[in-house]
Amino acid sequence: MAGDTSGMKHACGVFGCVSAGQWPTDLDVANVICLGLVGVQHRGQESAGIVTSPGDDKGKVHSHKGMGLVNQVFRDEATMSKLKGNLGIGHTRYSTAGGSDITNCQPFTVETLHGLISVAHNGELVNANPLKEKVLRHGTGLSTGTDSELITQLLCLPPPEIETDGPNWLARIKQLMSYAHTSYSLLVMHGDCIYAIRDPYGNRPLCLGKLLQVDKEEGHSVEPEGWVVSSESCSFTAIGAKYHREVIPGEIVKITQSGIKSMCVIPRPDSHPSAFCIFEYVYFARPDSIFEGQSVYAVRYRSGRQLAKEAAVKADIVSTVPESATPAALGFAKESGLPYVEVLCKNRYVGRTFIQPSTRLRQLGVAKKFGPLTDNFQGKRIVIVDDSIVRGNTMGPIVRLLKNAGAKEVHIRIGSPPLRHPCYMGINIPTKEELIANKMSLDKLAKHLGADSVVYLSVEGLVEAVQSGVEKLTEQNTGHCTACLTGKYPVELHW
Amino acid sequence: MAGDTSGMKHACGVFGCVSAGQWPTDLDVANVICLGLVGVQHRGQESAGIVTSPGDDKGKVHSHKGMGLVNQVFRDEATMSKLKGNLGIGHTRYSTAGGSDITNCQPFTVETLHGLISVAHNGELVNANPLKEKVLRHGTGLSTGTDSELITQLLCLPPPEIETDGPNWLARIKQLMSYAHTSYSLLVMHGDCIYAIRDPYGNRPLCLGKLLQVDKEEGHSVEPEGWVVSSESCSFTAIGAKYHREVIPGEIVKITQSGIKSMCVIPRPDSHPSAFCIFEYVYFARPDSIFEGQSVYAVRYRSGRQLAKEAAVKADIVSTVPESATPAALGFAKESGLPYVEVLCKNRYVGRTFIQPSTRLRQLGVAKKFGPLTDNFQGKRIVIVDDSIVRGNTMGPIVRLLKNAGAKEVHIRIGSPPLRHPCYMGINIPTKEELIANKMSLDKLAKHLGADSVVYLSVEGLVEAVQSGVEKLTEQNTGHCTACLTGKYPVELHW
Amino acid sequence: MAGDTSGMKHACGVFGCVSAGQWPTDLDVANVICLGLVGVQHRGQESAGIVTSPGDDKGKVHSHKGMGLVNQVFRDEATMSKLKGNLGIGHTRYSTAGGSDITNCQPFTVETLHGLISVAHNGELVNANPLKEKVLRHGTGLSTGTDSELITQLLCLPPPEIETDGPNWLARIKQLMSYAHTSYSLLVMHGDCIYAIRDPYGNRPLCLGKLLQVDKEEGHSVEPEGWVVSSESCSFTAIGAKYHREVIPGEIVKITQSGIKSMCVIPRPDSHPSAFCIFEYVYFARPDSIFEGQSVYAVRYRSGRQLAKEAAVKADIVSTVPESATPAALGFAKESGLPYVEVLCKNRYVGRTFIQPSTRLRQLGVAKKFGPLTDNFQGKRIVIVDDSIVRGNTMGPIVRLLKNAGAKEVHIRIGSPPLRHPCYMGINIPTKEELIANKMSLDKLAKHLGADSVVYLSVEGLVEAVQSGVEKLTEQNTGHCTACLTGKYPVELHW
Amino acid sequence: MAGDTSGMKHACGVFGCVSAGQWPTDLDVANVICLGLVGVQHRGQESAGIVTSPGDDKGKVHSHKGMGLVNQVFRDEATMSKLKGNLGIGHTRYSTAGGSDITNCQPFTVETLHGLISVAHNGELVNANPLKEKVLRHGTGLSTGTDSELITQLLCLPPPEIETDGPNWLARIKQLMSYAHTSYSLLVMHGDCIYAIRDPYGNRPLCLGKLLQVDKEEGHSVEPEGWVVSSESCSFTAIGAKYHREVIPGEIVKITQSGIKSMCVIPRPDSHPSAFCIFEYVYFARPDSIFEGQSVYAVRYRSGRQLAKEAAVKADIVSTVPESATPAALGFAKESGLPYVEVLCKNRYVGRTFIQPSTRLRQLGVAKKFGPLTDNFQGKRIVIVDDSIVRGNTMGPIVRLLKNAGAKEVHIRIGSPPLRHPCYMGINIPTKEELIANKMSLDKLAKHLGADSVVYLSVEGLVEAVQSGVEKLTEQNTGHCTACLTGKYPVELHW
Repeated sequence: MAGDTSGMKHACGVFGCVSAGQWPTDLDVANVICLGLVGVQHRGQESAGIVTSPGDDKGKVHSHKGMGLVNQVFRDEATMSKLKGNLGIGHTRYSTAGGSDITNCQPFTVETLHGLISVAHNGELVNANPLKEKVLRHGTGLSTGTDSELITQLLCLPPPEIETDGPNWLARIKQLMSYAHTSYSLLVMHGDCIYAIRDPYGNRPLCLGKLLQVDKEEGHSVEPEGWVVSSESCSFTAIGAKYHREVIPGEIVKITQSGIKSMCVIPRPDSHPSAFCIFEYVYFARPDSIFEGQSVYAVRYRSGRQLAKEAAVKADIVSTVPESATPAALGFAKESGLPYVEVLCKNRYVGRTFIQPSTRLRQLGVAKKFGPLTDNFQGKRIVIVDDSIVRGNTMGPIVRLLKNAGAKEVHIRIGSPPLRHPCYMGINIPTKEELIANKMSLDKLAKHLGADSVVYLSVEGLVEAVQSGVEKLTEQNTGHCTACLTGKYPVELHW
Repeated sequence: MAGDTSGMKHACGVFGCVSAGQWPTDLDVANVICLGLVGVQHRGQESAGIVTSPGDDKGKVHSHKGMGLVNQVFRDEATMSKLKGNLGIGHTRYSTAGGSDITNCQPFTVETLHGLISVAHNGELVNANPLKEKVLRHGTGLSTGTDSELITQLLCLPPPEIETDGPNWLARIKQLMSYAHTSYSLLVMHGDCIYAIRDPYGNRPLCLGKLLQVDKEEGHSVEPEGWVVSSESCSFTAIGAKYHREVIPGEIVKITQSGIKSMCVIPRPDSHPSAFCIFEYVYFARPDSIFEGQSVYAVRYRSGRQLAKEAAVKADIVSTVPESATPAALGFAKESGLPYVEVLCKNRYVGRTFIQPSTRLRQLGVAKKFGPLTDNFQGKRIVIVDDSIVRGNTMGPIVRLLKNAGAKEVHIRIGSPPLRHPCYMGINIPTKEELIANKMSLDKLAKHLGADSVVYLSVEGLVEAVQSGVEKLTEQNTGHCTACLTGKYPVELHW
Repeated sequence: MAGDTSGMKHACGVFGCVSAGQWPTDLDVANVICLGLVGVQHRGQESAGIVTSPGDDKGKVHSHKGMGLVNQVFRDEATMSKLKGNLGIGHTRYSTAGGSDITNCQPFTVETLHGLISVAHNGELVNANPLKEKVLRHGTGLSTGTDSELITQLLCLPPPEIETDGPNWLARIKQLMSYAHTSYSLLVMHGDCIYAIRDPYGNRPLCLGKLLQVDKEEGHSVEPEGWVVSSESCSFTAIGAKYHREVIPGEIVKITQSGIKSMCVIPRPDSHPSAFCIFEYVYFARPDSIFEGQSVYAVRYRSGRQLAKEAAVKADIVSTVPESATPAALGFAKESGLPYVEVLCKNRYVGRTFIQPSTRLRQLGVAKKFGPLTDNFQGKRIVIVDDSIVRGNTMGPIVRLLKNAGAKEVHIRIGSPPLRHPCYMGINIPTKEELIANKMSLDKLAKHLGADSVVYLSVEGLVEAVQSGVEKLTEQNTGHCTACLTGKYPVELHW
Repeated sequence: MAGDTSGMKHACGVFGCVSAGQWPTDLDVANVICLGLVGVQHRGQESAGIVTSPGDDKGKVHSHKGMGLVNQVFRDEATMSKLKGNLGIGHTRYSTAGGSDITNCQPFTVETLHGLISVAHNGELVNANPLKEKVLRHGTGLSTGTDSELITQLLCLPPPEIETDGPNWLARIKQLMSYAHTSYSLLVMHGDCIYAIRDPYGNRPLCLGKLLQVDKEEGHSVEPEGWVVSSESCSFTAIGAKYHREVIPGEIVKITQSGIKSMCVIPRPDSHPSAFCIFEYVYFARPDSIFEGQSVYAVRYRSGRQLAKEAAVKADIVSTVPESATPAALGFAKESGLPYVEVLCKNRYVGRTFIQPSTRLRQLGVAKKFGPLTDNFQGKRIVIVDDSIVRGNTMGPIVRLLKNAGAKEVHIRIGSPPLRHPCYMGINIPTKEELIANKMSLDKLAKHLGADSVVYLSVEGLVEAVQSGVEKLTEQNTGHCTACLTGKYPVELHW
């Protein structure tokens, strides 16, 4: 979506739905989940999967998973019609490590002592290695390299208290959370309910919504037809759902046909504040999503304003690298008083593709995704705003394109601080050596990119832009993880 | 791309390339064509094809065609490596009538008396039926329902003058043009050359470019490494080509390794001015393309300004249905003095898909592609600009979305006049009965859409916005086809 | 099917069906054609296609074609349910020259002056090149390299007599037959009828059948429910049809819902006897097919007996290279009085596959399709019968296998004469240089193959085995083409 | 393969290979396994998979699995070239219960405490349910419904003795065998070795072979280039391997680059004799495979002779339902003195397919796989031999076909006793209610099939035909499981 974040990979999206009625209900749960997953498709495009269940029978779920976009995996009536059920969970995946392989697709379903459970996971276990050792030593073999399988097998371990009266999933989930502190937003489906779980640090987002019901008389909605849970609230509009609230850090929420029930909130093991990933605001999330009581768009807009304060420059126009940087660019324009003008046209069909530019094109340094809107900027001094710089491969050709087409000056302004450290909580960031911010000073970077200047937003500026709009749930729950910018990780790292 | 033009289909894109050198040259012609086709992908997403030729041997071409996007059809090294050659042509198709079928994919290659020719066509023959009758009566069977095959077989007919000294393709092309007046932009490859042909009315675009060469010493380009021809100039940036000029209405241009040569200009059979499709400006073309000496973006921006003059309204903010209407919205904002603010976030993953909203969602009238940026417009009066309204299915849910999220008023402004008539020159417009503009008055339309007002741009306003920026080549060549708006067709219609 | 005929390719199969009733009838014509094509699948496995028509409407046919076996191309209800109709024709293809390409799949359908015609062809035009020149010079371009397209375009040429009262397809077919003398068995579907045409030399087979009708009371069949036409009668059993008769050389048969009508018999242009391909008996056809009043099995059995007379040898057992040589081996055993014993077990899953034996396996000379039935032949002298030797690659490893497993002697006997000449009438035989019979004497061949002796059937012996059972229709119609064995072609060859 | 055994499903094939040399060796292990799997393809056609390992590195295997035949799953160079390694195992699967699903494909690979293990299994655990309960109760979730996963997780359980000096796989395998007594033939790959394991009852076959090496000078083989293990010896010919011996019931064999080593033989828990599936002889295995020192062909031939003794009839000819019944038919002919004559021609292209005969064809009772060789049997009394009758759907149409074509009498003789009981050891037999032998007497059956008589081989006759040729390894190891015929199961059944 952005100008120069091609090196960063997203961390998956999850979506769940429970119908309010008795099986079989009118609500087409699989259809709702499918459209809901399309709403979080930007979080992962490698594979997609849905598991549904009638909710009346422990022994039976319907599952379909495949490589590709939601639209590609769920592409015919035959596929959809098999996904019958009153409840279900879905997943879109962006591979972090290892395997682009069908066997790694989620949701992950296993038979347990108490029947089938299905698990969908967004995040990355910081202490995956010791947990894996624990499971293997117990005598369980692991068939995939995924955290999801690890989590699922941890849920299968006998719980601390004996289950005399049937399964005690709450105890099993608590046990899991006592082993694994972060990072995960998790959906666990069993029987007639979905458990929605967010790790105690709240590193990845998760929120709840209500499905509106159509009033037959009026065409208006009246009361909930079901409940949904999603990585991002942006997926609610297209399915006719209303945002309800976030799952709070450490919370276990049980969703059944009767509604939503908070079971408990597991505290963090230390006094560290919560650690919601700040890059969800900067880059991953869709602008219309709501986190911590504010829209992502508003944060980006404020970042742009802050950037204009921190890094003013004499120029004629402000523009964007379409389209994720546009809110920041509009904020910069507002704060600086300079007019906002479009200078680049994006070709939406240039994606990850086999067709690569030839050696000749690489030597020419062609900007393969963008065409210049020459009339709009000839002879002018441009401030061009982007949301981040990762490897620095994209911006050079853009600057060259603008200058060749007649720009007088090009000043690069970045709506986030320099990326300097790896993430171990779900985001695939290139190695330190590949991050351009670790390679050269700002002056050298400007020269390297052919620009007249480059300035990043400060860490304090970004934190201020984020936290000034947060609706404070509790004192403890307003922290943010800035590890990729500062190297300060919220938890100790294990290998 | 636009808010409410889902009912209109584009009319294909063509792209050709000839290397400047002798076979085998360094230039990877198939790679250039592939990237060039990605640049005109917005003109047709149903199928793609490329035919290449070494140019030294009449008897041999390499061809690959398939259903889907360019990236899907040309997706591996095995496919690309077969497409060897010094020259080639390609095509992206948007089916007009009939068959979504692999046999209808272009380019269309046939063996003729003088060896193989390959043809790629953008447009639609107004007099296809009498021409078909002519070919069938001559004793040639037709295996597809496409104009391309018809054109190809017309080129195979014996030419008016006897070909004693070998093939006379110019005579054959002139004969074709005497039978078929519009609408076509055509690439015909034979032997070592490509003929680029635009119909005498200039109904569809076609332009020429030069491939820049890298100066080994400097990393700069020096002299042409080849020549390219494309439906739109926007495809030139990504292949390192420089815009040269348009093929003018009625012109036959021969492109060989030695360069570009204008062979002749066939006059229109009547005194009608040229008739370049005005909807290329309004909707089809990419904003960074150049037609008649001006950018498409500039025309859309002027349309927006003109619209603000014609249809001013008291409001707080101006916004766009992202993203094709953005230039017009920015123009409207500039002219009106109102601030430009984003109110909708678009989900790029909602495409043509099997997954359809359920009955419940249709009753709820959900805007499936858009999420609201609520903070930006709550309690405000919005002018929302779109580029056109076809069936009127999209705008209603958008207005509802905005109002439900707190918009005080929503005023719709359309950057083009009402669509009222069918097109027979390459654009698939719904039937008259389906066009919302033929169904109700503006007042009723506003009510139908739930908006506070709806106003279209006037025909005169649009023509002024277009023609005020045209670089006049000749007096005759500055006319535009407005048939879909006015019902005035440039040529007599035959059935 | 055979031991050593992997280098020979079959020449396609055709199948047609017309329902006896009015549209829409109870008979599922597409299903009948599908099963009928499975019955001639051995004649071509590269692609398959079916075209059906309601028969009440010139303007409409339903077509489905694809690469692969009939079962692979017609593999779901969605595909089959589109193939509605009262009549239809189908084709299975074995590429002769050039292109394994979907565009070369048959049946070939074109629009003509009189509506659509569909053509399915088995054979190869001996004078394809001058005919192609004729069509191109007329001004028709050819889009495939197939004889089928050539035949179709020849049918589109204006007929010698003016068609004032509508189409005169008989005149057009006669005109085609005056240009093209051999080799073809042809189905032409137009409107409500199928023309079944066999070339004047009768080079390829074609026969007619009646579809039995179920007597509701008794479960017995009563009167025809429709008519079928097929390359081979073996396809009739599985569709509940009864063999009626062959189409005779030069005959044009018209099949409609009313029945079968012989329109005329075009004489051969010279005094040459008919020239039915003798290799249809030896190798191509299924043993249960009927040609010229006798079963293919019977001919092969007689060949084996004749071979035993011509090439007796002291031995203990007679065996076969399973399974096409089995009738000849049983005939040899009968005549020689030696016991028939199985010595090889065939692996049916070794087909044309990507997985090739490694260098090591080639050096070891492994028989990849066969395992030895060691108990049956240890210490014995074996006569092993095969139907033909083409390149001689298969027999060497078989002999080695038998000897290694303990065979005392191995005598090879071939149920046909040596293949020495190319076929230009539909069979893809390797070049003269590749044919082992042109490379070495019998003694050398035996040594090359590691056998104790090799003897072929004589040409006279084969002709006798064939002609002794022919039901003589007329004096003229009992000749056979032996060109691949003798170099005597029935017609002059044109290039 | 047979006439009437379509209702019986095979029980998978396994194949393994270890190269004699150091990594990387010359031997293309993946290629050997691929061709080896083609050799046991008749045991399972639903899916195929191969896992290879360099053998020098615990952490790394290469795996490829897919639905379909071996040739379809391993169909290009890209797939094969990834399967590097010095050793590997493969599997062809015929689904028994539940899922035709890619996740059920074998080999099954998991990470254990001691690195990766891969498992390929032929058989079915009689006590799968209690074992599953055991694993689940231990706290391991199961992701597939397969015995292979269950076996693998049982191997992951901590072994009875503590593993202080690294993994003790022998102890783990012994522990598995103490839990699961039958039925399994198992390959377990770990590190640089393959364990080949046969259950104590020897229910499924497993044998060892040596790969011959080519002597560069002579083209002859000299010493082993590696070792192979296969479900059936018939797969050895095509890979240039020599049969070595069977894995004996209860034996654990370790195969490394140094050779084959027998680790131990686990005794049966009771005094029951071994219980090799007698239906492997009757139907599943390929005739050229060797079990217990004799060829499958020889057993079938003897069964035919025995049948002729038990069920003589006045007739003119003896024939077969091609082709699995042919050895029995030849044996019957030999014993009875009647001539062996072919009466049916099989269409090899009629397989499991979407295209089903219409209602009309079902009413006509058409034999869809066979055509009559009419000349061979008109006016004659036929004894037709088949290997078994399961549901009885196939034989009726065959008898009708023969009678309609002129057979005077048709006497059915079956080379095995009536199938009356389900199998719980790997063979998918229809329910008791579906087995025709449980539905009616022989007289009624003859009438039902339209035959003049039907006689089965006696149980004693079959056992005699089998055991008279067995090379007795030990007194205990010559028993056979006849449960499907007699209802006497070798072990107690658990649910």
